[in-house]
Formats: sequence, C-alpha cells, structure tokens
Amino acid sequence: MDSSLTPFFRPRGVVVVGASTSPEKLGYGVARNLIASGYQGAIHFVSQKSGELFERPLYTNLSDVPDPVDLAIIIVPTQSTPQTIEDCGKRGIKAAVIVSSGFREVGAQGAALELLCVEVARSHGVRLLGPNCIGTLDTHLPLDTTFLQPPMPEQGGIAFVSHSGAFCAAIIDWARGQGFGFSQIVSLGNQADVNETDMLPEVAKDEHTRVIVLYMESVSDGVHFVQAAREVTKHKPVIALKVGRSESGQKAAASHTGALAGSEVAFDVAFAKAGVFRADTAEQMFDWARALENCPLPRGKNMAILTNAGGPGVIAADSLAMNGLLLAKLNEFTLKALSSYLPPSASVHNPVDMLASASPEAYATCLKILLEDENVNGVMVILPPPPMFKTEEVAEKLIEIISAQAAVLGGGDAALSRGKPVAIALMGSTLVEEARKMFQRSNVPTYPFPERAASALGALAKRAEYLERKQTLKVSETLKVSEPKDNSVEQLLTAYGIQTTPIKLARNADEAAFIANELGFPVVMKIASPDILHKSDVGGVLLNIKDMLSLQNGYAQMMKHIKSLKPDARIEGVHVQRQIPEGQEVIIGAVRDPLFGALMMFGSGGIEVEGLKDVAFALAPLNQAEAREMIRKTWAGRKLKGFRSIPPVDEESVIDVLIKLSCLAYEHPEVEEIEINPLRVLSRGVVAVDVRMKSVV
Amino acid sequence: MDSSLTPFFRPRGVVVVGASTSPEKLGYGVARNLIASGYQGAIHFVSQKSGELFERPLYTNLSDVPDPVDLAIIIVPTQSTPQTIEDCGKRGIKAAVIVSSGFREVGAQGAALELLCVEVARSHGVRLLGPNCIGTLDTHLPLDTTFLQPPMPEQGGIAFVSHSGAFCAAIIDWARGQGFGFSQIVSLGNQADVNETDMLPEVAKDEHTRVIVLYMESVSDGVHFVQAAREVTKHKPVIALKVGRSESGQKAAASHTGALAGSEVAFDVAFAKAGVFRADTAEQMFDWARALENCPLPRGKNMAILTNAGGPGVIAADSLAMNGLLLAKLNEFTLKALSSYLPPSASVHNPVDMLASASPEAYATCLKILLEDENVNGVMVILPPPPMFKTEEVAEKLIEIISAQAAVLGGGDAALSRGKPVAIALMGSTLVEEARKMFQRSNVPTYPFPERAASALGALAKRAEYLERKQTLKVSETLKVSEPKDNSVEQLLTAYGIQTTPIKLARNADEAAFIANELGFPVVMKIASPDILHKSDVGGVLLNIKDMLSLQNGYAQMMKHIKSLKPDARIEGVHVQRQIPEGQEVIIGAVRDPLFGALMMFGSGGIEVEGLKDVAFALAPLNQAEAREMIRKTWAGRKLKGFRSIPPVDEESVIDVLIKLSCLAYEHPEVEEIEINPLRVLSRGVVAVDVRMKSVV
Repeated sequence: MDSSLTPFFRPRGVVVVGASTSPEKLGYGVARNLIASGYQGAIHFVSQKSGELFERPLYTNLSDVPDPVDLAIIIVPTQSTPQTIEDCGKRGIKAAVIVSSGFREVGAQGAALELLCVEVARSHGVRLLGPNCIGTLDTHLPLDTTFLQPPMPEQGGIAFVSHSGAFCAAIIDWARGQGFGFSQIVSLGNQADVNETDMLPEVAKDEHTRVIVLYMESVSDGVHFVQAAREVTKHKPVIALKVGRSESGQKAAASHTGALAGSEVAFDVAFAKAGVFRADTAEQMFDWARALENCPLPRGKNMAILTNAGGPGVIAADSLAMNGLLLAKLNEFTLKALSSYLPPSASVHNPVDMLASASPEAYATCLKILLEDENVNGVMVILPPPPMFKTEEVAEKLIEIISAQAAVLGGGDAALSRGKPVAIALMGSTLVEEARKMFQRSNVPTYPFPERAASALGALAKRAEYLERKQTLKVSETLKVSEPKDNSVEQLLTAYGIQTTPIKLARNADEAAFIANELGFPVVMKIASPDILHKSDVGGVLLNIKDMLSLQNGYAQMMKHIKSLKPDARIEGVHVQRQIPEGQEVIIGAVRDPLFGALMMFGSGGIEVEGLKDVAFALAPLNQAEAREMIRKTWAGRKLKGFRSIPPVDEESVIDVLIKLSCLAYEHPEVEEIEINPLRVLSRGVVAVDVRMKSVV
Repeated sequence: MDSSLTPFFRPRGVVVVGASTSPEKLGYGVARNLIASGYQGAIHFVSQKSGELFERPLYTNLSDVPDPVDLAIIIVPTQSTPQTIEDCGKRGIKAAVIVSSGFREVGAQGAALELLCVEVARSHGVRLLGPNCIGTLDTHLPLDTTFLQPPMPEQGGIAFVSHSGAFCAAIIDWARGQGFGFSQIVSLGNQADVNETDMLPEVAKDEHTRVIVLYMESVSDGVHFVQAAREVTKHKPVIALKVGRSESGQKAAASHTGALAGSEVAFDVAFAKAGVFRADTAEQMFDWARALENCPLPRGKNMAILTNAGGPGVIAADSLAMNGLLLAKLNEFTLKALSSYLPPSASVHNPVDMLASASPEAYATCLKILLEDENVNGVMVILPPPPMFKTEEVAEKLIEIISAQAAVLGGGDAALSRGKPVAIALMGSTLVEEARKMFQRSNVPTYPFPERAASALGALAKRAEYLERKQTLKVSETLKVSEPKDNSVEQLLTAYGIQTTPIKLARNADEAAFIANELGFPVVMKIASPDILHKSDVGGVLLNIKDMLSLQNGYAQMMKHIKSLKPDARIEGVHVQRQIPEGQEVIIGAVRDPLFGALMMFGSGGIEVEGLKDVAFALAPLNQAEAREMIRKTWAGRKLKGFRSIPPVDEESVIDVLIKLSCLAYEHPEVEEIEINPLRVLSRGVVAVDVRMKSVV
C-alpha cells in the first residue's frame, strides 16, 4: 500500500486554492461542501482577493496558510495550475485534487500542460488526483472535496471509484433516490498521476468499506491492476463496470487465437484472474454491491423462496436458475412445520406460497422456519403490497427475524464468515415506500423485482465460491524451466516439455523420400513457405502417405497446385513428419494482449476455429483449476472424456500442455502469438501436430 | 373477434353480487372502485342483507336489479358461485367476473366446482372471467371492477393481460411510482372459460391501446394463440413475459431434435412466429412497452447519442451495440452545424458530447440538428443533473423539439408510419424527478440508465424490422403435395420431394453382395435393427466399401462386433446404399411440441449434435425467410457458402428441404419426430443420407 495517498483520505488540514465568494463558481461549491460535510480538520481558503468566506479568512498566498495542511483542492485557471502545484510543494502539501479542466481532454496543448503539472508535482513529491475530476468524498470521516449539490450521500459501506465524474454525480443522485449510501467516492479524472490501480488498494483499506465498485473506461497498467485487484479481492469484493466495449477494434492477427482474442476478452479474463466481478449494467453493479455490502455469504447455492402469490414465485424460481442458483429441497421437518402453520391450500414446497392472506406474523414465522432448514442457504422473500395488511407491518416483522439471524453471526474474518442471506423482492412503489426505508435502515437489501433479487443472491453465491476456491487452491506458480538454447518453435516447446513430432525440411522430392524412409511410413507432408500461414487452405497438407510412390506423386501435385494458387509465395520445400495415431484434436494458443500480457485460448481446432468459436480464454499463467475450467467451458474440452462412439482421450495431458504453454507465453514476452493447432490428443499423451508462432525480433 | 366478450369491456350496466358494507371485505372494495372509477353506466349492488351502500340500494335478489345490466362481478362464497352464475344467466347477464377463490387452485374438490361453474355458464350462454382473479380495469372508459386500493392507474396506452392477479397488483403500484399508466388491465385468474388467447384480440381492439403486454405462465391452446397473436401483431406490438422456464423438464426423445427441443424452445419459436417480443424481465417488458407506446418507429438502426458527459456516452454506445443498433455516422452538414454551435473542446462526432456546461438551449439545438440528419434514425439523449442548470429547464427545451417532430408525423396506418424516436436516459433521482414528470406528461419515455434506453430503442427497431418483413414477404403457404401411399420414411420424404438414397435391405452377406453389385460400388452398409437407433455408436456403419471382398469382410466384422455389444438386439440384416459424394453435412429435424405443433431444427449434424448444440429452431411451417434465418443462426449454416478451404455447397437446396420437411411435419400430426442426419449437401443438390422417424400408431 502506498502511504503517499493517505493525505487524500486522512488529511489533518485542507486548503481550497481558488475558493470563491460567488455561489455559481465551483470554488464556492467546494468550500461550501468542505464545511457542510462536517470535516473536523483545519479548513483554509486561498483566493486572488482577500476577504472572508463562511466566516474564514481568504488568504491571497498559499504560504500564509497556517499548519496543519496536507491536502489542496485546486480550482484555478488551467494555465495557473502548474504554478499552484509548485506552491503546494513548497508549502509542504503532499497531495492535491485538481478540479480544473482544460487539459489532456481538450487536445495537444492541454496534454502538454498536464504533463508539466505531473513534472512539477513529481519534483516536489506531490501526488495528484485529476485533473478534470470532481474530487473525493468520505461519508464517515467525514470529508467532501467535491462541488456537487448537497447533501452528501448517506453513509454506507460501498466505495465507488470512477473514471467519469459525470457518472459519479448521476450515481450519487440516483443512489439518494434508491436510498443507499457510500463509504468513499473517488473521481479519477484524467489520471495524470494517481490511477485506478493506485486507488483500489487505498479505498480497500478503509474500515467502513465492505465492497468496492469501479467504473472503468480503460486500465492504466493491466498487469499491475490484476496484481493489485487480486490482493484486494481476497478480503473485499470488487465489482467493475468496464465500458467502451464497442470501441475495441479487432487487430490483424497471424493466428486463430489472435483473431478471436479482442481487448474485451482480455478484460474478461483479467477480471476473472483478479476475482473482480464484471457487471453488465450500472444497475446490476449496484444491485450486487448492496447485497455484498449487507448480506452474509451463503454456504451453498440452494435458495428458498417465500411468497404470498404464485406468479412472482414462478418469476423468482426462473431467475434463481438463470443466476446459477438452485431451488432448495426443504427438509421434512420444515415441510411439517410449514404445513401445520399455513392454511391447507398454501404450498409448503419451495417456492413456499403462503397465499394472499398471509399476515405479517406468517411472513416472519415462515422465514424463521426456512432459515432454520439446513438445506436452505439463503432466502428470497417476495413482498408485493399485501391485500389485507400494510407492507410496513410485514417489513417490521421480517426485520426482527433477519436482524436476530445477523446477531448470531459475526466474529472471525468477515471475508470467510458464512450465513444465510435474505433478499427482499419488494414489488410496488407508493404502497411499499415506507417498508423500503425500514429495510434500508436495517441493512436489508430490497429489489423492485424478483429477477434483480435473484441476481443479487447470485452475486453472493459467486463471491462465496470465489473465496472457497482461493482457500482450497494454490495460486498458480510458474514452472521453472531451462531457457531454450534456440528460439525455433519446436525447441521452445520442447524446453517447456511439450512434445512435438520430429519434423524435417526437405527441399525437393528426393530429400522428402529420404527423410520419409528415415522416419518410417506413414508420413505427413506439409508445404514449407514463409508466405503461407494456413497451409491446408492452399492444399499444402498431405496426410497418411503410405509409400514412396504416393509421396512422390503427392509432392509433385502439391507444388503444382500451390504454384497455381500462390505464384509469388517463396517455397522452401516441404516439412515431413511421421503420421500420428488417431485421436481428438484441439487448439491451444496464446496471444499477447498489450494491457494484460499473455491470454490463453483453448477449444475446437482444425480450420473451423474462427467460424465455430468453440473456444475459451484465460489469463496466463494458468493453474490446474483455471486450465480445467477452460476445458469444461468448451465442447471440444467436454468431449475429451468421450461422447457416444467417440472414445475418451488423455484430458490430463491437455491440462498439462495448457499450463506449460501458459508458462512459456508468460515468460517469453517476445512471443506475440503461439498456437498449437491441432494438438492431437491420444488415448495416452498428446502431440503438437502443427505449431505457428509470431515473435518480435 | 368474439363479440361475446364485449360486455366485459363495454357493459351498459354492472352489478356487484356479494357487495358488502364492511370496508375490510372484497365486496366493499369492488363496489367502492366501481363508483370511484367514474363508470358512466348503471351500477347495482346485490347482497344477502338489504340496506344501502354508497347511496345505492342493496338488492337481496339478482332478479330485482333493473335494466340495463350486462356484467356481473361475483364475490360470493365459493360454494354459492354456480348458483349465482345460473341466476345471472336467467337474468340475461352474459358476462361475469368471478373474483372468489377456492376453486381449481386448492385441489380436486375446487376443480370440480370450477367445472360446474363452466357447465352452468355454458348452458346459459354466460362468459366467465376467473375465478380467482382481480377483474378488469379500463382507465379511459372508465371502469374498475377490481378491489385494489385506489386510485386507479393513470390513463395510458398499455394494455396488460396477466395470468397472475398478484403480479397485476404489484405492477399497478410500481407503475404509479414510475409514472406511467395503462389503457386496460385484465386479470385472467384460473381461466375456467376466457383465456389469454380469447383476450388478446379483444384488448387489441381498444382504440386507446397502443401496445399489449402479457404476463404468461402457460398457454391454453398454443396453435390458436400463435394464430391470434400473429393477427394482432400486424397492427399492435405485443410483448410477453413468459415465466416457468425452470419448470420445463426435458422429456425422453428418440432423436437429437427431440432431445434439444424443450418447451422453452417451443415458446421462443412460437413467439417468433407470432411476432410477439419475449422479454427477459418485467422491467424490460415495461421499458419496451413505454417506448412502443410513445415513440415513432425508426426507419433504420442508426442512432445518435447526445450527452453532456463522456462516461455515460460510452455506456450508451456500448449498450446500443448490445441491442443490435448502430452508431449513426453523422453527415458533413451536421458536423459543421454542431462545430459552429458547440465549444471547440466538445466532441461533434457521435456520441456528441456537448461537455458539462451544456445549456438547455444547447441540448435543444443539438437535438434538432441531429434529428434533421438523414443518417440518424433515432436519438438517445443523456441527461444527468446538469452542473449549472436545472434538469427541468433542459427537459422543457427538449420537449419542445420532440413534440414539434411528433406533430409533423401522423396520418396513415399507425403501424406503418415511421419517425425518429427519442429516448431519454434521465440519470439521477431527486434532482431529475420534476423533469421526469414533465417528460411523462409529454409522452417522452425516460430511463434511469443508458443501458435501459438502448434496450427500448432496440425494441423499436425490432418492431420496425418485423413490420417491414411482414410487408415484403408473403406468409408461408404450405406446399400442396399428394399423400404418400405408404408411411415408410423414405416414401414419406419422397412424397414431399426430399431425395433420399436408394436403400435396400439385405438379410445376409450374399444378399448384400447382390444389392451392392446392382447399385454399383462404392457402397455404404448400415446395420438394420429396430433396437439400434444410433448406428455408428455400435460400429453399425461402414462407409466407402469399394469392392466385393471388403463388403464381405465388413459384413462379418460388423455382425460380430454388434453381437458382442448388443447381444439382445434384433438384427434384420444390413441396409445397403450407394456411397454419396463428399460434401458438407447438416442435420434437419422436426419434433412435435404438445402446445405449438411441429418445431423445426437445423444445424451441425453427425454424432456431436447434442454436445455441440450448434442448432436453431423455428415453428413449422417455414417460409423462405424463416428457413434462411435458421441457417444464418448456425455455424453449420453459415459455412454452406464456403469457408477457407471448405468449398461452398448448395445452400438453396438446404432451404428447400427445410421448407419441405416443415410442411411434412405440419401436415402429418402422427409424425412425432423426424430427423435427417446427416443431410449431405453437395455442390449441387442434397441427399438425405440417414433418416429416422418416430410416429404415433
């Protein structure tokens, strides 16, 4: 953790440079919020004109500001910003929020000025947040360095780090209407200095923060982000909304792996490696965050549904399934208890339908019974406005049960403690508003529809599963291998223990015959040309050549065919190798992503890779579990165990090659793309039949 | 259309049978709502005790109620319901809403009573809605036959038909908070008589209804539902939330097609055939409905984004792409107009970012410019609380532009008119609430996030595309074919013009040799056994037999192998057919769904069908466009045109077989499953290599 960022969150004193007495100016808003926030440290204002603001003096010179002062909020004209940073440095201020805009976001001139700011800051040991940001918020300290309309957000356990200031502002107002709060909010702006990777561990340190949400438009340093996030997610959940999917163009690639791995795939696998949950929408991100903030993690995926109406119960059952959850099979004791309590026409099987007449007591009693069932890992309570009671009467009774359960929990590492989450599908609006507030005050998350409650329960189960895996599995360690003496593809693979077939270059038909004789028939013959990447596309592969005559005929035909198709291709001859026994064929590849490093691909090989797209990706280096999961995700992988008349082959050897190739790719940054296609998987062992590689010189 | 349902919507008089003076009784609620709704027809009350309610007499006998009275709302004890229906019939009342519960939903006894109700009703020509429903609502007539807490929903253009009364009630309250209204609401209850298929054309008739949403737990008669819905969607959009996905079990199947076609697939293809849009969640259903209610349909998929902040603009661009929409390429005139109006650091390319300082006038001016660009088919305006202005000031200016555009439209068939929809991503809560109400009053749909606005614009584009297709394509007409003389699979296929290979049964090796000689080598030999469905699984297929010796050896080996694997299988001999030339192989199948009839499947064939799942489904009979779309959806179909070194084959012949097989399946209800696997697709023509069929005796 980087203690140089502490002044942003725990300053002993704050100065606003560019404070203003005009209410329409940002420099007024920042000063107002700083005071209104209730910040307990020293607050000082610097302005061009002396005077008074909020009963405090306006200094005209930063050097006049008395101690202590650790943090500056700078809202001065763009051009004056570097000078102001220098003044801060001289004054001993080690952190500054640059609210001003007009830098990199407006073009080359602004970018140059931004660089100057960073240079000046570095030379004085000042850390910068922004420019072009709306600052920071801490509801618990409290501290508000923004100019947003008051009041501050409610206190809460969600830390929110955002690349977009406008998105921050909109979310703060939206959250107010939804009734949830935040622990800390950080707007990163242009990230001239401090970026998301710096900030993530910093907000994770805050004791009030129980979950971190990231709005990301990019990543500054993918490799370090994954490392930092991986550490954070061991203790606190992180959810990211990564935008800019539609901007990620496809680059020209020399391999199938390269063609299929876009930058969005890279973000997906990087988040997976780091344990960061990727949300599809902003609403989903906060639906998950509110559950992770307030609910214990379940011990399993078996959920009960408690409802007073059939329809929403069916929606709930559907949406549990869509989120990877299961309908708990209630035990006999539970069924008896529910039967004896509920009217005969109620349904005591999950979903438990108490009927429309259900009273507040019925809700509470049934919830208690369900929570006591060891087959139940969590409960979704469906609460539309009850026909005969007020919703808030039901809320009151439910909260008693949920709070009692929460009280029993606690102690030990919060990340590892387990319980039974309860999510409320509080359906309606005006008739449920009071109940919603009551649940909110009691830290019970509510959702307007069962679908969203199910998504939230799904996030809890996913988080629990992630932590289980982290406990039971060792993080991948890279293999120690000797450096290959030569950079040829085969030698490189051999150095990592990946078996290839002996392959020899023949420059003419006679040499091919000689080599074939040496290797022993049957053999395979492939065109050798630096200009032909996809050999079978041009008739450049001849399989199962059984005797000398077939070889000679085949050689002649191949050359003739290729010369007609690719007259300009440089032909070096043919590669000859032994025919390998029958087996299944898969593709294993690696491609270097500019942000995150080597991405691994596994899937259905052959020439149809890009059409069929039966492939899975993960970030190198891989551990056993990650390699196994890639295999499980594809049909090519699932059928390794055999399917119908297809005999099973050696799945473990495939996992072995995946791990080894991931280490190769991880340890050889000069390898841009490497692809084994096909990897022939035999009943015992595997053979890399064809390999192509592209590396930087 | 069924005029017997008219009294539910246009009664001249209504009687509440079971009206009550006790405010906690449903019979009080119904009476109260009927009067409070402002219904203009006659209102009468029947009760066990005489007296007065809401200044109206309580009759003790239905026969005493004066004319006119067309509709009865029945809230009497369950047991008395049949008698009450009979009284209605005798009194000349032709429609009754049965609010009472305690019928089929509580077990066998209740089901019997429900049947009795239907019998009594039929014998008197009375149509029943319910039992166990909450009745109907019409905000425009107005008429409210429910007992729900007042006030009635707002007036609107959305008709809502629901299998669940509780879901109705919750949605009505939720809609109130969201600020949108309804035209009509119908709760169907147990559907003893009137079901969703009856009701759909009825609500479509209402002039105030612009879009219909269905909450469905099942379908009463799938074939009629598709027919009725297909008619309705020609004129008005229909959106369905079909729940109960998780309940649909997989049944045992004799073919790959049968194994892959679950009941959810059947609903998907039935909705597709009927032009009903299937929503994933309740929120999505109403997001779409509000757009379809209020916006013109776009002429294309090119959307512009107008924003005052970069972040939400990026989210918007992403989510347009995820909803099948495109970022419009603004024309030169637009770019110039925007450049000259906006500050230099604004972005005039789509997404158009006016920067945070954007004024209400800037929003309006830029929207107007964008709407005038012929490359722009619709606009998403992103409106977080602007830092320097009130949101409602922006709303006011935007509404002027949008309303002016709307005024230009109009005239002609509403379903066919086109315009430029504008959806607002109104981000925030308290600071945007007033603006939200203003947009609502002006019939401009707003959404809290760009993702949901994009989903709504996507629904508009999808609806426009659906109507285009309906105009340009003829609905499928079934082929006229002669009835096959024999039910054998080959003859059946031949009768529909699907070519199979001549195939002959040989009962021993000698007969096989004789037949092979007759057909000409090379031949294919397949085991003939009623007990072996998947022949290649047991080594029961031998390909490319080139001569007599190979045939005789092959026969002996096959028999030996199968006897060891399947000693109990009845072996009739082998089928011999000519070896067919190389080509691509696909699977084409049909399976009878109990609700909707024949479902067609197309995709990657061979033995890996169920593992690979590269298949698409559609409801028979197929037209050209539907068959082509099935092909386009699968990799097996896309590569028919050729891919890399795979040569192109005869795609048109595949479409031809798909259509013909769909006609066969449609016209032969005795065919439970029929599957051509593989269908060999040659450079010209196709051959059904292997066919299996299961039919009811």
